[in-house]
This record gives sequence, structure tokens and C-alpha cells, in this order.
Amino acid sequence: MASRRRVRRGLGRAMAVARAVAVGSLLALAAVSPSMPGLAAPLKTPRAAPALSAQPLAQPLPSWREGPTKARILAFIASVSREGDAAYVPPAERIAVFDNDGTLWSEQPMYVQLAFAIERARALVAQQPELAANPVLAAAAAAGNGEAVLTMGTKGLLELVTITHAGMSTEVFRDLVREWLDGACHPTWKRPYTALTYQPMRELLDHMRANGFRTYIVSGGGVEFMRVFAEEVYGVPPEQVIGSTVGTQFSRRAGRPVILRKPELQVVNDQAIKPVMIEQVIGRRPIAAFGNSDGDFEMLEWTTSQPGSRLGVIIHHDDPEREVAYDSPSAFGRLDRALREAPRRGWSVVSMRDDWSQVFAAPAAPGDSAGAGGANRCAGGTGQLPEQPAVVPGEMPRVEEAPAGRQP
Amino acid sequence: MASRRRVRRGLGRAMAVARAVAVGSLLALAAVSPSMPGLAAPLKTPRAAPALSAQPLAQPLPSWREGPTKARILAFIASVSREGDAAYVPPAERIAVFDNDGTLWSEQPMYVQLAFAIERARALVAQQPELAANPVLAAAAAAGNGEAVLTMGTKGLLELVTITHAGMSTEVFRDLVREWLDGACHPTWKRPYTALTYQPMRELLDHMRANGFRTYIVSGGGVEFMRVFAEEVYGVPPEQVIGSTVGTQFSRRAGRPVILRKPELQVVNDQAIKPVMIEQVIGRRPIAAFGNSDGDFEMLEWTTSQPGSRLGVIIHHDDPEREVAYDSPSAFGRLDRALREAPRRGWSVVSMRDDWSQVFAAPAAPGDSAGAGGANRCAGGTGQLPEQPAVVPGEMPRVEEAPAGRQP
Repeated sequence: MASRRRVRRGLGRAMAVARAVAVGSLLALAAVSPSMPGLAAPLKTPRAAPALSAQPLAQPLPSWREGPTKARILAFIASVSREGDAAYVPPAERIAVFDNDGTLWSEQPMYVQLAFAIERARALVAQQPELAANPVLAAAAAAGNGEAVLTMGTKGLLELVTITHAGMSTEVFRDLVREWLDGACHPTWKRPYTALTYQPMRELLDHMRANGFRTYIVSGGGVEFMRVFAEEVYGVPPEQVIGSTVGTQFSRRAGRPVILRKPELQVVNDQAIKPVMIEQVIGRRPIAAFGNSDGDFEMLEWTTSQPGSRLGVIIHHDDPEREVAYDSPSAFGRLDRALREAPRRGWSVVSMRDDWSQVFAAPAAPGDSAGAGGANRCAGGTGQLPEQPAVVPGEMPRVEEAPAGRQP
Repeated sequence: MASRRRVRRGLGRAMAVARAVAVGSLLALAAVSPSMPGLAAPLKTPRAAPALSAQPLAQPLPSWREGPTKARILAFIASVSREGDAAYVPPAERIAVFDNDGTLWSEQPMYVQLAFAIERARALVAQQPELAANPVLAAAAAAGNGEAVLTMGTKGLLELVTITHAGMSTEVFRDLVREWLDGACHPTWKRPYTALTYQPMRELLDHMRANGFRTYIVSGGGVEFMRVFAEEVYGVPPEQVIGSTVGTQFSRRAGRPVILRKPELQVVNDQAIKPVMIEQVIGRRPIAAFGNSDGDFEMLEWTTSQPGSRLGVIIHHDDPEREVAYDSPSAFGRLDRALREAPRRGWSVVSMRDDWSQVFAAPAAPGDSAGAGGANRCAGGTGQLPEQPAVVPGEMPRVEEAPAGRQP
């Protein structure tokens, strides 16, 4: 996985294999350091976020410590939103883009979407034992908490995601992800994954929207995977989520139209592909970009290399006490060039240790049954679902549909 | 061009040639019958559209004649917007999708984007005479008003668009389109193309937005081509335009990032690809869809085949007096299956002759210099630009970059 930086450009199926080294971006697994005190439960606030514009926060970004980073972010938001200011930007162009893994939630020790893929592999092999003939599925199905998967190599990971996420309609896929997220727990933290998001970034999303920004997620995660939770957790609606895609195909089942997911990667939304997808989907250049790894370099470069007041922000994971400390040597979310070039490019570097008074989302208020339930549900669990998510008959991935050359 | 209906499914470059028969959708040319009285000048209203929600139109859709079609459309919009109604749909899900060519403006006698491609071919050959060695460029450059281009076959048209739209950054491409639209006139009507949009549909877009809908264009036209005028003419912002795409690539010029257009089709957004792109970009299923050809069949089917109150509308070009009458035998915008199946699928068929009291956009108000200027500009013109649009040095398409197999 250390070589994912080598991959730089190109769309098209022909390049999918070459870009396989970036597959990590398709997956996600929120993790926290076992020493972290005060764990969190999910908040159900995003739907209410727009109301903030009517009554501005008396003290925006309460989980951000006072200092130059917070001051710069707040000053930027205020100036581009203030009519008459030299930096003023009309609301239609107030677009901010956020990476997800490592920027809005944790990506250590591996991506959440990879945990989902492992779980899917288990369910598939349990129901279709002959699928164990595929060594990638067999390895994933046998792996306890995914460690074995990490050793199967990039090609194996790519195939794992491709096979386990394909062969079903987009609607069935969303239901599977939702069902899995509702039941799954982080293996060491014993919390729902959606409870392990960064509270300061959620406050920032809210504050920017309250000031007329539209907030987009632009991540290497699968677009359909992220859409399942992005609206509830971050207040980001489906049409403002840009991610990696698989090929899909319009079809009809029992006379009704469906869109089927095919076992082939279409876009790996990482590195130089991020600005390409921003241009293709949004058609406007953002004025603010937030990332945490070299995979976000080109997105920040694209955002900040135009005239006017622009904001580029790098989240630096330097807090081993409350989360994980990593940058250049990391298998997931390697941060090297972007950190080195941040000063001369004018990008702010957020120290999670120094700039954030709280890392993970706040505990749910008493009486928030969803939050409390989420926490209780995982308190004694192993991180595995007691029951496999339902697989709809006739919607099973067929391994023989994998493109030639992908079979081990 | 009559065979474009044969093409049904699949993305990926490998299918581009097979789908070449759908290339007409990439292009557009607004046309009106020479007998039409009372021509129109462009309106500059869309930015003001959201204000309508504060003061609802006393009489919505004034250019629609009273009758069952108008009544059904108004009833649908009212019911899904009225809290407590059995058909109520929350604003976030109130998504309406509109085809462009033949639905929002005319597509006869050929697509506007094809006129742009011909003009680009002329400019290229004039500045690089050696490009005339390419027979497609030579034919397009020599064609008076594009008739010769129509006879060059689908493969030729595809190559024409591919070459003339490539080899430059997305920003340069937008400037070229804008410059061309500002100067170009319809060859027979002597009007700016953007003045030849359908007034009833512009009213409908406004009325739906005033009732909380988000209006998307989902068209076979090139997404970057349409974005240049969609906001000003229709009030549809760039991020709500979905269209055909070419491959693009992140690059750097003089140390600044650019996104370059490559001479390869990526997505031909027609027929079964429309719902695929809707699912990929929006991630929600629309509740209303408007089209005019069999190329919109799957989009209407996808929209209306789900539970709840849904609206599918076909614009039928049956008004030879004020526009053009065509359906099944047309080279552009063939309408056959969708018209036949409309009754049993519950789709409304709009008779342009009977349902619309006015076809084209209203004349500009006195003092609207842009509108009047547009009309005057073309009054004595030939429909050709007096000067070719500027081509930025170093941004020239290089024919040798065309993928193998595309060369004639």
C-alpha cells in the first residue's frame, strides 16, 4: 500500500489496474487510539444545520482552540461572506470541498469501507461456499479483523472491493451498507463507525453552510458508500458527494428499471483525479479545500492557485493521545509532499493535538436514543455483526463476471 | 443519423464507437420555421427566479393554454409541495430533470453544438492549413452552413466534435463557447441561439423552482458546452447540468494547474445512460422528467416507475406553423416508442401547437440592451461570425493526439 502515491493520472477502465495502488481510497475504517478517553456517540444534527443561518452561533467552532489556525479559518469565512469586502464571493461560488477519510473521520488502522468489504466477503462465502475458490474472497472471509486482508496486496484489495460491491442494484447496495453501518462496531473502540467522526470538522461544515457555503465531500471512498451516511452524519446531501465509482448499467428486472453495479472500477477519485471530478461534476472551482494526505494535494492546488481569497487546509494527525499520530510513513493517508509545501503554498496546517480541544463527535444528549443505542449496542460487542446482512436472492455477485485479467 | 436509436447501453471508451450513432446528442442547433412570426430576444431573468418563492405567480405558466396538460402539471407541482398532502415530497427530494435539445430549445434542423463544431473546424483549418489533410475537418471547414457535415456520417460527426473540442483547457473551451454564442446567429432566423428557447419551458423551470424543486438539465449535449449558457438562459447552475463528457486530464502549464480536454469521448449521455448518470451524479431518483425523444425514454421510465406521485412529460413537436413538426422520421430527436407508450405509462404529451400559446422566449423588454443588441446584431447577418473566435496559442488541438482507430 505504500506505493499508492505513484499513481497520478488518467480515467478509463484501461488504467484501473495501474491505479489499483490507490485502492485504499475506496475503503475506510475509523479508528482511535485505545488510550483515548471520553468516547462519542452519533449526533443527529445535520438536518437542522441550515437553521443556523437565522441565528448565528455566538461562538463558532467551539471545539477549536483559539490560535492562528482557527483565526485564519474564521476570518476567511467572514470575509468572503461579507458584501462589500474586497474578498467577497457570491453564494453561488462559495464552494468548499472536503476529503472524507482522515479529514472528516479517522482512516486508521484501515478504511471503514474495507471493513464492509470483508464483512460482505464473509456473507458471500457463507452463502455460496463455492466462492471460496476465489483466494481473495477466501482470505477476506477467513480474516479475523482484516489483518490478513492488508497483506493480500493492492491487487487483492482491489478485487475484494470490486467483487463484494458488485452484482446488485444501487438500491440493494445502499440497503446493505445502511444495514451494516447500523449494526457494525469498530473492532477496538466498540463504537458505531459514524460516532467516530471529528467534532471540529462537523462544526466547521455547519459554520460554513451557515455562511452560505455549499459543502462537498470529494473523497476516494465509494460515492454510493459515502452517500448512505453523509447526509445524516455530516449534513452533506447525496448530490454533494463525489467519490470513486464502479461501472453501472441500466437494466430491467420484472419489468422495472434498475441500475446494476458491475465488477469494474470506473473512477478512483484520488490525487489528480479529484480536481478532474470537481470540474466534471460541479463545474465551478472551489474556494476552500480541506484534506489530510498527499492524495489531496492536487485538490488543494487546484483550489488555491487562482486569484482571490482562497483557503487550503491540511489536517495533520499529530495526536497519539486522542487519536493516532502519522504522516509520511503511513499506509493509509500518507502525508509528505503536501506537508512540506504547505508553507510556501499558503496552506494552513491543523494540528489535531494543539488546535482541537475535542477530537471525536460529542456524546449524544441524554434521551437521544439513537446515539445512546449506538453506544450501548457496541459496548460488549466484538465489532462483528451477530448476523450477516441479508443478501437478496438473485442479486448475488457472480465471480465469473469479473473482467478478464482480474482473476487471480 | 436515423440509426442512433439502436444504441442502448454501456459506458467506457471501448463502446464509444458503437455509440457513435448517438453523437447527434452531443451537438445542437436551434431552428425555427421561417414562417414563425414575432421572434424573440434573450431574457436575463434566471438569477431573479428564486425570488418568486416569496411572491408566487398570480398566474403560473402564462404561455401554457388552459387544458388537461397544464392542469395536470400544475396539480402535480402543487400536491408534492403541499405539506400534509398524500403526495407531499420533501424539498430535498423534489428533483426534476429536463432534456435540453428539443425540450428546452429547438434541435432542428441540427444541434447548436454542431454549428459550434463547424465554426471551430473553420477556425482551425484557417490557422493551421495542414489540418485540412483531415477529411472531416476539411469537409466541415468547407461546408457553408453545415449541410455537408450532415452527410459525412456518424463517425465523421463524432470525430469532428472530438477534435474540435479537444486540446485545450476547460477554461479556454468555455471562453470559446461563450465568445461564439455571443456572436453567432441562427443561419435562417438571424437571431442569437439563446433567444430561441421555449418560453413555456422557461416558465415551468421558474415555477418548479419557486415550489422548492431543484431543476437539472440531463442532456446529450456536452456538459461544458451547456454550462456556458444554462445559468443565464434557464437559471440552471453548472452543478445541475449533466451532459456528455470528454476525457480530461489534470496538468500544469507555467506552474499553474489546468484541466485539459482530450480528444476522446467519455460518456454519451443519451438513452439508458441518462438514468445511469442521474444516479451517479445526483444520487437521488427524480420525481419529474421532461423529454422530447426516444433518447429520453429510459430517463422518464426511471423517474416514473417508482411509488408515489411522479410526472413524466413528452414535448411533441407538432407545430409546423410556429416551429417544426416531426417525430418518428426525424434525424434529430426521433420520437417513436416514447410517444406510443406514453398513454399506458401515464406520461403527459404536450402538443406544442395546442398547449402552448407562445413557443419561443418572449422579446426583451424595451431598454434590455442585451436582448435588443442580440436581435440587432443578427438582423442583417449571415449566421456566420465576422471574425473567428480567438484560439489561444499553444492550446491548439493536435490531430495526432486522436486515439488510434479514430483517424479516417
